[in-house]
Amino acid sequence: MIKTDILIIGAGPTGLFAVFEAGLLQLKCHLIDALPQAGGQCAEIYPKKPIYDIPGFPEVLAGDLVDNLMEQIKPFQPGFTLGERAETIEKLEDGSFIVTTNKGTKHHAPIVAIAGGLGSFEPRKPLLENLEKYEDNGVAYMIKEPEIYRGKKVLIAGGGDSALDWSIFLADVAKEVTLVHRRNEFRGALDSVEKVQQLKNEGKINLMTPAEVVALKGKDQLEKVTVKNTTTSKETDVVVDNFIPLFGLSPKLGPIAKWGLEIEKNAIKVNNSLDYQTNIPGIYAIGDVNTYPGKLKLILCGFHEATLMCQSAYQKIYPDKKYVMKYTTVGGVTGFDGSKKEAPKAVVKAID
Amino acid sequence: MIKTDILIIGAGPTGLFAVFEAGLLQLKCHLIDALPQAGGQCAEIYPKKPIYDIPGFPEVLAGDLVDNLMEQIKPFQPGFTLGERAETIEKLEDGSFIVTTNKGTKHHAPIVAIAGGLGSFEPRKPLLENLEKYEDNGVAYMIKEPEIYRGKKVLIAGGGDSALDWSIFLADVAKEVTLVHRRNEFRGALDSVEKVQQLKNEGKINLMTPAEVVALKGKDQLEKVTVKNTTTSKETDVVVDNFIPLFGLSPKLGPIAKWGLEIEKNAIKVNNSLDYQTNIPGIYAIGDVNTYPGKLKLILCGFHEATLMCQSAYQKIYPDKKYVMKYTTVGGVTGFDGSKKEAPKAVVKAID
Ligand SMILES: Cc1cc2nc3c(=O)[nH]c(=O)nc-3n(C[C@H](O)[C@H](O)[C@H](O)COP(=O)(O)OP(=O)(O)OC[C@H]3O[C@@H](n4cnc5c(N)ncnc54)[C@H](O)[C@@H]3O)c2cc1C
Ligand SMILES: Cc1cc2nc3c(=O)[nH]c(=O)nc-3n(C[C@H](O)[C@H](O)[C@H](O)COP(=O)(O)OP(=O)(O)OC[C@H]3O[C@@H](n4cnc5c(N)ncnc54)[C@H](O)[C@@H]3O)c2cc1C
Repeated sequence: MIKTDILIIGAGPTGLFAVFEAGLLQLKCHLIDALPQAGGQCAEIYPKKPIYDIPGFPEVLAGDLVDNLMEQIKPFQPGFTLGERAETIEKLEDGSFIVTTNKGTKHHAPIVAIAGGLGSFEPRKPLLENLEKYEDNGVAYMIKEPEIYRGKKVLIAGGGDSALDWSIFLADVAKEVTLVHRRNEFRGALDSVEKVQQLKNEGKINLMTPAEVVALKGKDQLEKVTVKNTTTSKETDVVVDNFIPLFGLSPKLGPIAKWGLEIEKNAIKVNNSLDYQTNIPGIYAIGDVNTYPGKLKLILCGFHEATLMCQSAYQKIYPDKKYVMKYTTVGGVTGFDGSKKEAPKAVVKAID
Repeated sequence: MIKTDILIIGAGPTGLFAVFEAGLLQLKCHLIDALPQAGGQCAEIYPKKPIYDIPGFPEVLAGDLVDNLMEQIKPFQPGFTLGERAETIEKLEDGSFIVTTNKGTKHHAPIVAIAGGLGSFEPRKPLLENLEKYEDNGVAYMIKEPEIYRGKKVLIAGGGDSALDWSIFLADVAKEVTLVHRRNEFRGALDSVEKVQQLKNEGKINLMTPAEVVALKGKDQLEKVTVKNTTTSKETDVVVDNFIPLFGLSPKLGPIAKWGLEIEKNAIKVNNSLDYQTNIPGIYAIGDVNTYPGKLKLILCGFHEATLMCQSAYQKIYPDKKYVMKYTTVGGVTGFDGSKKEAPKAVVKAID
């Protein structure tokens, strides 16, 4: 059982910044995310694209924003349960919660902050017989640890940024990389497309287009993938260790929709005039996942919501303490790792 | 008469960011500030100190944050009335407003956003007979345009960062710089104190401590300042063109408190559950100047409030238009100066 002060569901920019604000209040956080990495939409959908409306950044790449947030929260040592979906919630008699993931990991906390964005990112799966049989036995929809593909024969399917970028990355790691796409044209960043062309020319990526995967074979473990050329209809068996269809991830509010929270327009209603708490005391909803009059699904709004939410959470956890806010410039930042950031102090010094 | 869409009172971080959010909605802004420069508390009180809780910045100097915001809003070409205090407001029959400053400058806009922080920064003045007579005739409490001191004999009084930093700066500009402080000890950044010591040793700053200014002399224009050594009680007349007492600025809500707005705890009450509007329709209050349940006087909260305020202002100005929000990453930023920032587009390209 993982224990923490604030359990945050969703490690997007909102959830990450909540760790910082909670940390200033000396509250510990743990984050659950269905994705294998932190950063939510910014990391998953558009890491290399610029954002122009983060205050103080005339321009920042979404991926860099996530990196900066990770750096900013480092002193507060958040825990992460990645690649797992928060599935069920149970309220204990003392008002605290147990949240369990689809893989059975249990988390216990007095406060739950749902920062689930547009929902848990779930892969779009190809329609193939036996697909489920091979899940975790050769078939994966996201790449969690690239190292497990070292020396392996990998077949990637897809025509977008993920398929391109992972093909490039694995060309250096795997024994063999095959990229299958149902068109000849790929859609992605220009340099990614050009890099794949180059690796193909060098024989480091085996390209099969226009084609699609039509069958999976193997005893328990995946052994072969049947690829059909969609022009000639010719079928070829490719010997592989891994098949990774990268057809995009789509967010689904999913299990959270059944937690008894008031839902409106696929989002969780909150009390925005106070602390972004939901209809269930102790459960907050911040960032893209919540809704209230005038709500804007913007990153900078999630930051504000996370900040006010943490103040309220503090009062719930310590009803008898009175928290006196100190500016970070004045009080510094004291990490749980013993680190201390502090403004240089003014001196009082005679001039003679 | 200066005309604009949103008249912003206060050019602190909140007011500055409002320019950006308004610009995304194609609304023009003009800012009034009592200080000679933009940036509010960040620029006036702690420009060289680090802030740790601006989301995405593990650390940023307050002055750099202001510079970044100025850079971010550049495409939206805000107007500035600096060094003047917004004094009176008048509501016209059509619901729009005329705001007049203490210097008589008039501004006309359908929307007024008060981003006045802790109030208009007003100088702490020394208690001296005739002081008012010499105001603008040799006496100034803030340095608006350093160039007007070129070749002049300047006497600065004070013992903090402003007195130190302006003495250093003017040592290169003025003909003569005298620094008067009632103690031998100065309080400020170590390198500022050391720099003044060095300039004093080089004869570039004339230091008089422990001492204070006790009288001002001159026909219409200031000609001499009498300085009294507080240990020996000896008085010395110093021939000067300018006397600049830098005893700090203290914020005063001041005239705004008399505009008929609901005030609570020296701040303006707003409807935080919707758009941060005050009890007078068309007047909003954002940033440190407002109050609502759970209010935190933090920069990041001002950013959020400014953003929601602009959406509401847009609806007031264009009641019949429906604004469809576009992410900056997707829609880019189109400046009033014709500039365009845009994310590189994905390509669709065959690999063969
Ligand atoms: C192309 C594009 C461009 C954009 N441009 C801008 C822009 O310019 N400016 C701007 O402000 N915003 C922009 N946005 C929106 C911005 O990315 C979102 O507002 C932001 O990501 C919301 O952050 P969040 O932390 O609330 O949620 P998200 O980033 O959506 O993160 C939520 C996380 O929660 C996880 N999750 C949800 N449910 C569960 C569950 N049950 N179990 C485990 N994990 C779960 C998800 O997997 C996800 O990782 C853009 C979005 C896109 C797609
Ligand atoms: C030492 C110090 C450290 C701080 N550290 C932090 C920190 O770490 N994190 C954080 O988030 N915040 C911090 N703050 C607070 C932060 O600076 C404020 O929250 C922020 O400046 C508020 O921005 P604002 O734009 O709302 O108002 P302000 O910055 O106060 O700007 C308001 C402006 O309005 C002008 N004005 C007011 N009335 C009038 C009028 N009638 N006419 C003309 N002009 C007028 C004023 O002159 C002023 O320039 C700190 C503050 C101080 C003093």
